[in-house]
Amino acid sequence: MCQLLGMNSSKLASVQFSLEGFVRRGGETDEHRDGWGIAYFEGNAHQLFQDPLPASVSPLAEAMRRVPVRSRNIIAHIRKATQGAVELANCHPFARELWGRSWVFAHNGNLPANELPLDGRFSPVGTTDSEHAFCFMLQELERRFGARQPHTEALHEALELLNRQIAELGSFNYLLSCGQGLFAHCSTSLYHVERAYPFSQASLIDCDLRVHFGHLNHLDDSMCVIATKPLTTGEDWAAFAPGELRYFTGGTLAPGGRARRTPSMAI
Amino acid sequence: MCQLLGMNSSKLASVQFSLEGFVRRGGETDEHRDGWGIAYFEGNAHQLFQDPLPASVSPLAEAMRRVPVRSRNIIAHIRKATQGAVELANCHPFARELWGRSWVFAHNGNLPANELPLDGRFSPVGTTDSEHAFCFMLQELERRFGARQPHTEALHEALELLNRQIAELGSFNYLLSCGQGLFAHCSTSLYHVERAYPFSQASLIDCDLRVHFGHLNHLDDSMCVIATKPLTTGEDWAAFAPGELRYFTGGTLAPGGRARRTPSMAI
Repeated sequence: MCQLLGMNSSKLASVQFSLEGFVRRGGETDEHRDGWGIAYFEGNAHQLFQDPLPASVSPLAEAMRRVPVRSRNIIAHIRKATQGAVELANCHPFARELWGRSWVFAHNGNLPANELPLDGRFSPVGTTDSEHAFCFMLQELERRFGARQPHTEALHEALELLNRQIAELGSFNYLLSCGQGLFAHCSTSLYHVERAYPFSQASLIDCDLRVHFGHLNHLDDSMCVIATKPLTTGEDWAAFAPGELRYFTGGTLAPGGRARRTPSMAI
Repeated sequence: MCQLLGMNSSKLASVQFSLEGFVRRGGETDEHRDGWGIAYFEGNAHQLFQDPLPASVSPLAEAMRRVPVRSRNIIAHIRKATQGAVELANCHPFARELWGRSWVFAHNGNLPANELPLDGRFSPVGTTDSEHAFCFMLQELERRFGARQPHTEALHEALELLNRQIAELGSFNYLLSCGQGLFAHCSTSLYHVERAYPFSQASLIDCDLRVHFGHLNHLDDSMCVIATKPLTTGEDWAAFAPGELRYFTGGTLAPGGRARRTPSMAI
């Protein structure tokens, strides 16, 4: 199994604080030694950094600490291999283009991928069940909606149907984004926390680092962080129910957790 | 217009020396200030680093100097924008998956992209003529070969037909790889140099750096570097003829510059 970290923000934001604790789970405070990856969006495009080395010792992870990555949507992942060798092709997140946008996906779980038939429209480059499931999802979304991206509400509904179909086969926690907002699906374990005015202070669970978000943010900043397990103490992490799909946009959980037609397309 | 840098090597190799001179053309010794990118392969998968900042001042480019990137196939690019804004989505190289492999493409030239009709199988995320042409190429290759990757000789022939069609519209120098070897097409300007035993020494044109490749390589190492303009003095850079497509595999120019069925698939 693996661990997921996602971020959706109202403005361009850094995820550096949460990432500090998260990467330590990649071989230091936890067992996820089989690679890591982080993707962030800039407009329609994404940047993706990955390494099959443990996040806690990866030279690329170390180099990335010097680069000020700021985005509205970030998806990160540390891997404990269940299916597929420890190699670059099997590092999450995975990315594909559909409808002229980059789609980025990271998964925590274990699936019998051969029960999800692929027609060649999207094919895995690596050998993980996760990339296979991602290819299947995009294939089914295109089959349903054709050549044009649907509005986010319709996408939410289609994803819920796909989630039920896929999660029947195994565990299927995931993060998905095309840069407009962030979908998060819980099969077994997922939490989110919202950081907004009045900001609290928090301590990382995985290392000795403490921050008061009021000192780092403006009054109108808002950001949600989604993770397999809470990363901090001193904040209220809201557990997902099994089977729940939440949509984050503008740095907040969409009303009722559900994508809506109008506001989501404005992001 | 832009500048291209490619590398194909018999073993995992670093392109650090050539890159040192190349990135200086990104805003320091030359005018290519509108972004840069580098992709390298690891098996079927690729890693892609890009930044819309000039390569000579980019924090990501600086960070990447600390990361030991070694690969058999590398494609790098510095951009001087002709079509499309200066943003991440418009940085080369571009990547797409086809036939379960990552395809990476970088272009130097200028094309009237709307004369290359796209059917939605691959769609540009950004707004460059280059990404549009890349989408068109992959679309046409899949249309011709169907669901399975052809052998490299057939691919070479198909690319030559596409090159003629596209280069009729404008200038179309490019590098293309799926990690098995490297295709390089010249429309107006492209050179390659082969570094093999007995190794020579060379000096970078764009900065005060000199190296004897015999001190860095084993006797059986072999590597080709392809660039828009020669990067060094002291080496023989072989100019491409306009319209020429060369295939590099195993760190050397394929016999006659052409991909062959048997050896190319063994790489």
